[in-house]
Amino acid sequence: MVHIVEVDDVDDPRVDDFRDLSRADRRPDRPGGRGLVIAEGVVVVERLLASPYPVRALFGVRRRIEELTEATAALDVPAYVTDADVMARVVGFHLNRGVLAVADRAPVVEPAELIGRSRRLVVLEGIGDHENLGALFRNAAALSVDGVLLGAGCSDPLYRRSVRVSMGHVLRVPFAHLGSWPEDLKLLRDNGFRVAALTPRADAKSLREAALDSGPVAVLLGSEGPGLTDEAIAAADLAVRIPMASGVDSLNVATAGAIAFHAMSGT
Amino acid sequence: MVHIVEVDDVDDPRVDDFRDLSRADRRPDRPGGRGLVIAEGVVVVERLLASPYPVRALFGVRRRIEELTEATAALDVPAYVTDADVMARVVGFHLNRGVLAVADRAPVVEPAELIGRSRRLVVLEGIGDHENLGALFRNAAALSVDGVLLGAGCSDPLYRRSVRVSMGHVLRVPFAHLGSWPEDLKLLRDNGFRVAALTPRADAKSLREAALDSGPVAVLLGSEGPGLTDEAIAAADLAVRIPMASGVDSLNVATAGAIAFHAMSGT
Repeated sequence: MVHIVEVDDVDDPRVDDFRDLSRADRRPDRPGGRGLVIAEGVVVVERLLASPYPVRALFGVRRRIEELTEATAALDVPAYVTDADVMARVVGFHLNRGVLAVADRAPVVEPAELIGRSRRLVVLEGIGDHENLGALFRNAAALSVDGVLLGAGCSDPLYRRSVRVSMGHVLRVPFAHLGSWPEDLKLLRDNGFRVAALTPRADAKSLREAALDSGPVAVLLGSEGPGLTDEAIAAADLAVRIPMASGVDSLNVATAGAIAFHAMSGT
Repeated sequence: MVHIVEVDDVDDPRVDDFRDLSRADRRPDRPGGRGLVIAEGVVVVERLLASPYPVRALFGVRRRIEELTEATAALDVPAYVTDADVMARVVGFHLNRGVLAVADRAPVVEPAELIGRSRRLVVLEGIGDHENLGALFRNAAALSVDGVLLGAGCSDPLYRRSVRVSMGHVLRVPFAHLGSWPEDLKLLRDNGFRVAALTPRADAKSLREAALDSGPVAVLLGSEGPGLTDEAIAAADLAVRIPMASGVDSLNVATAGAIAFHAMSGT
């Protein structure tokens, strides 16, 4: 059970982890300079509570903390309760979701481990945009992708905005970082995966022809503007494309991903 | 060819159509109180120029107006040229795309006409969110949907934010309003369309089973929260679902739409 602690002083150091949230992703005082994991709103806080990330504290208005009573039953951390005004002044802006939780980062998962226990993976290259990254995790969760491998040029999925846009699913879908890019794609091949690079190239197979729903498959996605690098495409087993109308920009990367994930699911 | 007109006075009445853009969607002085069509940025302005919407004027910094020289070759309207500072003060905020165009609304398309010349349509109910609406048009354009029918509770696709999020494709994909909801879905049936309601209901057919790529098809999408009304689902020919992992919120409506549009395309 959480320990309710009333906070009425904006400068109370006990809520420092929640202070000035718009800068919370950079914490020079923390390992690697990276911020803590911040969950916003009842639904995302619930997903954090069900995740491997060790929760340090909650902070919110009474009504929202009370909505979380059941979800926090097994938790032994403080819940700082305040009013909306003090909360806004600590956080730095009005937060209409009314509750936050903060957690430490969990130990990183090794790519080989994640690959070993998966059948459907997504591999990302150059996804720097936190909203696209969050949306990709949300779509991966909904469409039963087992995990995400982060190649070169990707942002940190645990940034506050990614957590929020993913609706907390970055805390639920496991991810690992590939160190050597794109050489580490061979880890997938060594484990019997077919690696399919999604690209608008005209000589790529259509998603339907590629039949991604058979056997272990990893789909490789690049950023919206430049797309996948030639090196990444060359390191894949095949190139696949979503047939698109001419004269239209490519789809948003998270949307293209969703179409590929659905094709992989075989359902 | 556009007529270049230098503007250096923030209060110049000739740029009134571009003034205070954050309020530009409400124009009590215009028919129906609705704003003019506003295109932002070179790409979207080019799409506006290629659309049936009659362009009234351009407004931008010299470099962006010049980028549009070819696209505006056949156009006989003023192009107001100014600097970034005057532009920001007219528009009400800094607009980093550097160019705008404004157009009148075009005559509305009748549903019967749009249905008569289409094979793949999307029908929307309760899509009030301008970003979702814009994203649906972008996805419809990319995935070769012929048109959009707007049922009850939808916003105006020509709102500035929808135009922007659609990357101008609301100006390219034709749309029509269904007056009587959901009775007007019979217009589709009378024209040989199968109407497939997308819903998470467990008794719906999976998208794959439904085989939406044969014959004229219209897919019916509702808003993310409440989904389609029972009346709309009852008025459809069949219910289809995207199989999803348990414990995950439904997909964003534009993303779910993209998966359905891809399934409809048969490619």
